[in-house]
Amino acid sequence: MSPTPHPLQMLSVEETEKARDIVLARHPDHVIEFRQVDLKEPCKKDLVPFLQIEHDGQLYQMTSRPPRMAECHYDIIAADRAIQYHESLVDLEQGKMVENIVVGKEFCPSLTLGEFDTLIEVCEASAVFKSAIKELNLPSHMEAIIEPWPYGSLEVGDEPGRYFQDLVYVRDTRNGNNPDSNFYSFPIPMIPVVDYYKRELVRIEKLATGGKGDPLTASARDSMNHPLAHCTTAEYVPELIEGGVRKDLKELSVVQPDGPSFKVSDGSLVEWQKWRFRVSFTAREGVVIHDVQYDNWDVFYRLSISEMTVPYADPRAPFHRKQAFDFGEGGAGMCANNLSLGCDCLGAIKYFDAVTVGKDGAVKVQPNVICLHEQDNGIGWKHTNWRTGRAVVTRNRELVVQFILTLANYEYIFAYKLNLSGELDIEVRATGIVSCVNIDAGKASEYGNVVNPGVLAQNHQHIFAVRIDPAIDGHANTVIQEESVAEPMNSKTNPMGNFYRVVQTPITRSQWADAAPLRNRIFKIVNPSKLNPISMKPVGYKLVPPPTQLLLADQRSLQAKRALYAQHHVWVTKYKDGELWAAGAYPFQSQGEVGGVQDMVDRGDDVENEDVVVWSVFGLTHNPRVEDWPVMPVEIHQIQLKPTDFFVTNPSIDVPSNKNFASQLVENGKCSGKDLTNLNGSNGVITAINGSTNGVVH
Amino acid sequence: MSPTPHPLQMLSVEETEKARDIVLARHPDHVIEFRQVDLKEPCKKDLVPFLQIEHDGQLYQMTSRPPRMAECHYDIIAADRAIQYHESLVDLEQGKMVENIVVGKEFCPSLTLGEFDTLIEVCEASAVFKSAIKELNLPSHMEAIIEPWPYGSLEVGDEPGRYFQDLVYVRDTRNGNNPDSNFYSFPIPMIPVVDYYKRELVRIEKLATGGKGDPLTASARDSMNHPLAHCTTAEYVPELIEGGVRKDLKELSVVQPDGPSFKVSDGSLVEWQKWRFRVSFTAREGVVIHDVQYDNWDVFYRLSISEMTVPYADPRAPFHRKQAFDFGEGGAGMCANNLSLGCDCLGAIKYFDAVTVGKDGAVKVQPNVICLHEQDNGIGWKHTNWRTGRAVVTRNRELVVQFILTLANYEYIFAYKLNLSGELDIEVRATGIVSCVNIDAGKASEYGNVVNPGVLAQNHQHIFAVRIDPAIDGHANTVIQEESVAEPMNSKTNPMGNFYRVVQTPITRSQWADAAPLRNRIFKIVNPSKLNPISMKPVGYKLVPPPTQLLLADQRSLQAKRALYAQHHVWVTKYKDGELWAAGAYPFQSQGEVGGVQDMVDRGDDVENEDVVVWSVFGLTHNPRVEDWPVMPVEIHQIQLKPTDFFVTNPSIDVPSNKNFASQLVENGKCSGKDLTNLNGSNGVITAINGSTNGVVH
Repeated sequence: MSPTPHPLQMLSVEETEKARDIVLARHPDHVIEFRQVDLKEPCKKDLVPFLQIEHDGQLYQMTSRPPRMAECHYDIIAADRAIQYHESLVDLEQGKMVENIVVGKEFCPSLTLGEFDTLIEVCEASAVFKSAIKELNLPSHMEAIIEPWPYGSLEVGDEPGRYFQDLVYVRDTRNGNNPDSNFYSFPIPMIPVVDYYKRELVRIEKLATGGKGDPLTASARDSMNHPLAHCTTAEYVPELIEGGVRKDLKELSVVQPDGPSFKVSDGSLVEWQKWRFRVSFTAREGVVIHDVQYDNWDVFYRLSISEMTVPYADPRAPFHRKQAFDFGEGGAGMCANNLSLGCDCLGAIKYFDAVTVGKDGAVKVQPNVICLHEQDNGIGWKHTNWRTGRAVVTRNRELVVQFILTLANYEYIFAYKLNLSGELDIEVRATGIVSCVNIDAGKASEYGNVVNPGVLAQNHQHIFAVRIDPAIDGHANTVIQEESVAEPMNSKTNPMGNFYRVVQTPITRSQWADAAPLRNRIFKIVNPSKLNPISMKPVGYKLVPPPTQLLLADQRSLQAKRALYAQHHVWVTKYKDGELWAAGAYPFQSQGEVGGVQDMVDRGDDVENEDVVVWSVFGLTHNPRVEDWPVMPVEIHQIQLKPTDFFVTNPSIDVPSNKNFASQLVENGKCSGKDLTNLNGSNGVITAINGSTNGVVH
Repeated sequence: MSPTPHPLQMLSVEETEKARDIVLARHPDHVIEFRQVDLKEPCKKDLVPFLQIEHDGQLYQMTSRPPRMAECHYDIIAADRAIQYHESLVDLEQGKMVENIVVGKEFCPSLTLGEFDTLIEVCEASAVFKSAIKELNLPSHMEAIIEPWPYGSLEVGDEPGRYFQDLVYVRDTRNGNNPDSNFYSFPIPMIPVVDYYKRELVRIEKLATGGKGDPLTASARDSMNHPLAHCTTAEYVPELIEGGVRKDLKELSVVQPDGPSFKVSDGSLVEWQKWRFRVSFTAREGVVIHDVQYDNWDVFYRLSISEMTVPYADPRAPFHRKQAFDFGEGGAGMCANNLSLGCDCLGAIKYFDAVTVGKDGAVKVQPNVICLHEQDNGIGWKHTNWRTGRAVVTRNRELVVQFILTLANYEYIFAYKLNLSGELDIEVRATGIVSCVNIDAGKASEYGNVVNPGVLAQNHQHIFAVRIDPAIDGHANTVIQEESVAEPMNSKTNPMGNFYRVVQTPITRSQWADAAPLRNRIFKIVNPSKLNPISMKPVGYKLVPPPTQLLLADQRSLQAKRALYAQHHVWVTKYKDGELWAAGAYPFQSQGEVGGVQDMVDRGDDVENEDVVVWSVFGLTHNPRVEDWPVMPVEIHQIQLKPTDFFVTNPSIDVPSNKNFASQLVENGKCSGKDLTNLNGSNGVITAINGSTNGVVH
């Protein structure tokens, strides 16, 4: 084991194995199945002094440091498969378990991908399932595919258990038996429900396949036709696409002949263009960004994606139970893609691996789950002096920390993007295959859109919660709600009627707030004790909350009760160690949000000039288009964190405005081979050659 | 003259000269000053049949074509400098003027950059101005700089005339007398008002320089200190930046070894990845996009930026008169930058020139006012089959048509961006130097922010109007307002409370509408006669209106009366030839919007299944940050036009998912020289090599 890992450095393979062994030693007579072994981040009160010493440039190896701890989640399996779910803390230096919590039965741990294999086996082996498939009279080239989903909430009548609902599709094997033929275009109208603990199929729910005006319940099927008779293929793998892939998209490459501008050291420390931060990766959140500084000024303590819920709006039972919590139930880190070079990014790419533990305790490296690269994002700033014709223009370079999830049919691409102007954006791209069910031939539905014959893509929402733990030039911060408000014309303050007022309201008690873009409502996170020497206003960063639609489900519904967080755009809470989950720690099979942001707000903490946390909630209401099929083009959403009077000037004002000599002029449809050095007077193109001069029209 | 220019091809130098000569011949005994000579686009009823024949693949040279016309704007100058403003049409084939309109005195033509030189000369030569400057006792290294602005509206007491207000700054010549030293950090608190027609300085307005609690009017100055004594330099040209430019941002280049994927032919026809459209450039609008098709389907007839107003919110007279209309008053085409290679874009770049006419009738080529290039915008779509680990991922390539304006202190970068998924975005980046005035040392203001000592950047808004003339699979279209609406839980339609309803309301009469993002309000432009064969819904494109703050000025103010268009997000009107201007044709010095979208809507036209025009209004309320100084980082806004059930599948599903072999792995801080071909097993990086396989974690 490396002697001095940074307190925020993810656990190494050796540390993970040590923690596992300590867990196993603690429970010598039990069968243990591991869920996760991750670094337990130090308490803030221990970590902040450490970081302060590190920032001051003292060798952190020399200072006292927070204890190195592993957070271990695992199940103890009884002979009858009854499960006890444990959350334990292991002190790696002391070599012992220092805390062991047995989580109460009222809370369910998240799913693991290992469970999926079992669920599929149970379903496939079930005589009831086999018989149900047989009754459909499917042609022999159709092979059933089972796609386990979380069950949603337990409902009245459900025995206690650990339930999953299996969506069922078939793969058409006639395409050369290609294992990647898109089975989602052949949805079977049944959902087998499986109890994982009992390893048994509980029941099969028949699905309604009607359209407008049809009842909410499944009707008897026409036994003459199988339910996929009207379905057709819809492929996305290149070798199966009808007509093949297009041939006329020419190569566009990013080259960085001098290498990247970033530096990665000490395992997780990233330095780039005055930014400095640490990267880690957790089983639940995927990438976490820590200890963000710009030019040695503290900006953020910790940034993460906390939760996302995806409620479906089809009112026909059991579709109301389609509500995923992809972080709390699924685990973003567990579902992360291996990002292979040149395919997910362009340019000079640095990858980070993660360490994970299998159910059996096997520790392995998950390669390339995080990628880091620079990208160009167009013009950064420009000004032309119209008197002299002199233009100065800079590019807007970004540093991107990216990870990608696959959750059954669907993909999310998350990126933390930092730029030269001191701005930090958190972007999500939604892509993948929309969740779909069977619909009768020729029908339309008000519950979704027909995107392929027989395929109804159901209306749904995606609602994300980003957790922002700020450190705006220190940890005592205040969140100010600011609006630009029309002022009625009046002789005293607004004689000509053009004045509007900028109104600031500090948030003093923990509370929620909503976006109000027509009032230009923004939230400034400021340090009230530190004034900008130019404007004499508190230094700050602003959050412009994306004014996206909030959760639509009725307040009395289980969907709404489980996702209180999704009902407001901004939550301001007081920091508490370990309080990371917008929808609470245990959304799996939950019947309501417990320990989520609503509970945190209800404490009524003083949050003025305190250690605050800001939760930004946004998303999309997705009523699918035919164009979203079979794989949807990315739908991009992001939040922006921008300095407001944090700096004393545009932080990118010193970015060079060099010409790029790799760019080429197109003449007669081809790159001319002419770059700026031989452009003068060529072919009617008149442009200034002096590196600092640019023409202007006047 | 080329024998067969396309009817949408901009006028050539020869055509422009011919039109000019016809104008001169028409007024043989007069002094004429030209404003613009542009192509007069054919009436839609003449152009549409022509385009139809062209689309059908018939050689358009063989068909009858609309007459080739030039629209000529010019002034006839009388001996006493009285001016008659003419708008004439010249038929270039017949070689004669076919229409000659003398615009009434109640309307003022836009400014020309030629006027600025005169305005500066008049002011500088004025004894009153000289004496006012002298009274300030400025040190000798400070050289006054005059920046002409439109005057705003005539007010009670103003004689008839053509007024400009001159903002005055000084340039500090101590920086080696650098002509590009930033003078905006030294604002003189006076505004000389100049009448262009009379060539005289009318008066000098003294500006208030106070802060919170100070009166709205200017107070007597302390004669001991000059008003710039507390101001300091704030440079942006690289050679003047304190400490120089940063050195550690390494080269990032875009290379396209096989050239661009686009083709430009016939002067203005652009073809790229199933998109096909024509580009033109007008004095008022800058780039215009015409006849947009995707895969031979009509999508848009004409896209343009129609107007932008920038009202300032400082209530102290005369600042209420700071309200620019940068298209209607300034002319986007006239203020367009010469985009020099590699500086404004990366990669393989095609430039287009424009032809302009000087005041004296001299016709010249304005080089490189439009640029066309491709860019990468991250992942386009991705799906991983978690069973097989096979990932398919494509890049989201965009084609960008860009132009950039400089309007005195400020810059706007406009881009039409088309992508592989059939989407078209219209983006604006606001940058340049924020407009600023003098503020006393040590004071703060509720009218703006102090961004440099003595410099108050005033609060203001920018409100844009984009004109969308759709042709969704034909010209008879309907605009549908669509919302996603929560449905109360009820046993009949929503037993579990998860259902929401998608409610569509067709717009039947010309009207305005506002954004309502919390209702997920979108506007679908559909062809009600053409149904998507999959969903059986009308083919369409949707506009998601950016829910930005609308004009804040009081309804009774001149600012508000001049910009009725800026008070709603969406306007739906019936097409009328030549009706292009959201704020009316003549905003210069206007006292109200005449002939703008409000007047169009007031006609109450039937717009259902008709030739409709959609106007999208959006903008930003800009309360400046210190970080916006001295040149602000780009603030990016855009509208998106996305197909909704226009296609029968994701239009980018056939985009190849090739790996990019130019990308490089970063190891030990440097590009390793390793691309995908030699990655296998290197240095602990494990990634699939097979071009079609990508790992997945589960």
